Amino acid sequence: MKDINNYISTNKDRFINELIDLLKIPSISADPAYSKDVLETAKAVKKSLDDAGCENTEICETKGYPVVYGDKIIDPNLPTVLVYGHYDVQPPDPINLWDSPPFEPIIKKTELHPDGAIFARGACDDKGQFFMHVKAVEYMIKNNTLPCNVKFMIEGEEEVGSDSLEDFLKENSEKLKNDIILISDTGMITNDTPSITTGLRGLSYVEVEVTGANRDLHSGIYGGAAPNPINVLAKMIAELHDENNHITIPGFYDKVEVISDEERAEMAKAPFDLEEYKKALDIDDVHGEKGYSTSERFGIRPTLDVNGIWGGYMGEGAKTVIASKAYAKISMRLVPDQDWHEITDLFTKHFKSLAPKSVKVKVTPHHGGQAYVTPIESIGYQAASKAMETTFGKTPVPQRTGGSIPIVALFENVFDSKTILLGFGLDSDAIHSPNEHFGVWNFLKGIETIPYFYKYYTEMKA
Amino acid sequence: MKDINNYISTNKDRFINELIDLLKIPSISADPAYSKDVLETAKAVKKSLDDAGCENTEICETKGYPVVYGDKIIDPNLPTVLVYGHYDVQPPDPINLWDSPPFEPIIKKTELHPDGAIFARGACDDKGQFFMHVKAVEYMIKNNTLPCNVKFMIEGEEEVGSDSLEDFLKENSEKLKNDIILISDTGMITNDTPSITTGLRGLSYVEVEVTGANRDLHSGIYGGAAPNPINVLAKMIAELHDENNHITIPGFYDKVEVISDEERAEMAKAPFDLEEYKKALDIDDVHGEKGYSTSERFGIRPTLDVNGIWGGYMGEGAKTVIASKAYAKISMRLVPDQDWHEITDLFTKHFKSLAPKSVKVKVTPHHGGQAYVTPIESIGYQAASKAMETTFGKTPVPQRTGGSIPIVALFENVFDSKTILLGFGLDSDAIHSPNEHFGVWNFLKGIETIPYFYKYYTEMKA
Repeated sequence: MKDINNYISTNKDRFINELIDLLKIPSISADPAYSKDVLETAKAVKKSLDDAGCENTEICETKGYPVVYGDKIIDPNLPTVLVYGHYDVQPPDPINLWDSPPFEPIIKKTELHPDGAIFARGACDDKGQFFMHVKAVEYMIKNNTLPCNVKFMIEGEEEVGSDSLEDFLKENSEKLKNDIILISDTGMITNDTPSITTGLRGLSYVEVEVTGANRDLHSGIYGGAAPNPINVLAKMIAELHDENNHITIPGFYDKVEVISDEERAEMAKAPFDLEEYKKALDIDDVHGEKGYSTSERFGIRPTLDVNGIWGGYMGEGAKTVIASKAYAKISMRLVPDQDWHEITDLFTKHFKSLAPKSVKVKVTPHHGGQAYVTPIESIGYQAASKAMETTFGKTPVPQRTGGSIPIVALFENVFDSKTILLGFGLDSDAIHSPNEHFGVWNFLKGIETIPYFYKYYTEMKA
Repeated sequence: MKDINNYISTNKDRFINELIDLLKIPSISADPAYSKDVLETAKAVKKSLDDAGCENTEICETKGYPVVYGDKIIDPNLPTVLVYGHYDVQPPDPINLWDSPPFEPIIKKTELHPDGAIFARGACDDKGQFFMHVKAVEYMIKNNTLPCNVKFMIEGEEEVGSDSLEDFLKENSEKLKNDIILISDTGMITNDTPSITTGLRGLSYVEVEVTGANRDLHSGIYGGAAPNPINVLAKMIAELHDENNHITIPGFYDKVEVISDEERAEMAKAPFDLEEYKKALDIDDVHGEKGYSTSERFGIRPTLDVNGIWGGYMGEGAKTVIASKAYAKISMRLVPDQDWHEITDLFTKHFKSLAPKSVKVKVTPHHGGQAYVTPIESIGYQAASKAMETTFGKTPVPQRTGGSIPIVALFENVFDSKTILLGFGLDSDAIHSPNEHFGVWNFLKGIETIPYFYKYYTEMKA
């Protein structure tokens, strides 16, 4: 397996250029204006699988954007790894905060990435990360070192809730059958402290609309007498947390997994520097639930955040208007044993109960997903840990992170397979933010590490 | 004076077409993209004064948009009426709620305007209303019935706070010298219940910015731990009112004019139908300060309203982001004896004190103005009342309204003149809202009524 390093040395410029070509296509699934680009990206992904030596490659239609499939079956008796990733990206807004255009990738050095990082929307989330798998599999196929079977399933709706995926999995459960699912769509602690994600939070994402009068009103004539939906919405949002930043939705915490003091003490050993954290975000204080540390707040506790709010006059200057409507997008990150459908219902009921009689409230669920935990005693986790140890020279730390990949819980239901979350990005890579990037070192380290996972997993499984 | 009706009958189509031409120019002072249109409107206004027979017409430069001046001095010993109006308009957003384009005026019949109403931004506020004066003066000049002197001062920054007007008044106090100021920039109760505005609220308008982290963050990774400026802003806005909808800013009510129970009882006699009010706005309940009626809430009490709010992801679909910044535009309507500079300071201090340590807060004052009251025993009021009685057949009701014309208090300071607020629009004419309109009947009734004001005022003043 040592020749993986030679293969990377010889081909790294091509790897990077191929990724850059992929990053140039603005595959923004949230915005229908980019639907042609999303479809074009699917084609480019299929071609990359063909080029890597995969077989049975296919752009599989769904009700939404297609899933790109490809496989390499060397022996039906050997284990099968299913690689999942997504080729769609987040919208780049606010676009004016990007230092370079989000779909014109450039490589720049940063403090944390002295070998350079590729700056582009999707660089880390998830084009750069799933493409490591394409290149690692290319290496194994071209050098006859693939020790087991591999299937790829790269979807185009992850950033908008993977709406079509459940049906796709169920309709193609035989074709997608696998022993383990491998995903790189998370991060690790630092380049010196490799980690494997063992817990993901669930998600419930809703949009709310508060309506006052049937039209925008003059604030002089109506101010103080007619309902102002912005003031009302602000008050309703404020009432979703109490003075200790606990969420006030009745029943919200009922099913939250109780973590023992011992386990909390064990987790608290993971390296975390609060001063560095505050400095990196340029904040004077953190802000979260009373009684929990910062790592616990994003690791093991459910949260509620407003992701967007709008209403009334947002232009330059002043307009003395009382808006007819105000809107917010609100998401809740959930922890194991909270059911996102139930939480969405609890939120809806509670939010509506907060409204005064003077307004009308509409709550529209966008999407959601269940939380997930990977057992560290599983073969999959052990193989991934050993692979990272081989290439990083350090045993990775198991880590629960705050993000959500709603389909992971779904995979377990449909395939009865565990998922290994082997990510190589860093939290500071600004995914979902302006100036998203992915370290060149991380990209190549991922390509180097992945083949060892296949080797150890096949050996341990034998 | 009876020939005013003949003059209107003969010329009404021309009057309406001239107004329509003026309404076609998008003179949006709040948006610098329309500065050429604002200036073009000033030229059109000057030409209308020339055409009406005014002299000394001039586009007077200021630091901002120009003031259009014109006069007709028939005898320096006779009284002088100064007509004030504004040729700038509010932005038309939300533009998608207009049934016809805001700058393509059309005439349509409505329930309240069976003779038709002109639909366009600025139709009522204030192009249609100041243009009544231009046409009334045209009639008086052309028919040699002008009984006193008249000066016009039509500005272009009313909708953005009349920033240049104070300097302009002071620098031109001799030229603008007058005995009474006449303004049509308010409304009346209904076409059957004429009214004259005797009270205007003051205004303080600010913009606030709440900053959390130095960049947008992924809500999964940071949610619950980093400050969310939208949640924080919502909470801060909510805290500006208590559970009785009183404003919580310390000192806010200290100087509010105390109105006796007798006076409140007198005001309560003005016709007001709460059920009709709710029905017209399509709301199930009103929303305001405990202990005050709806008319009192907008008539004699100060209020605080959020006029716009924005932050985070506002596009289609879902984006799991924690915004770096959230913004709101907030205005306070003030009553007599509250000083808007002092209130702006009190707001700023209090708002900043509400912020948790995890965020940074910036408050930018936009503009403001003092409240004003016209004494009903003044000659100006009596002349206006008699003029309306002559053309409507009913004595008009004196009425305090919730709107603000910040420069009215300024006029009293600079000229020592009282202001008569003789408006012919209706509250339902949707000024500052989509589908603003002005009844053709109201437009012509204004032109008919104004010459009587000149006649009675000159007679009473003699």
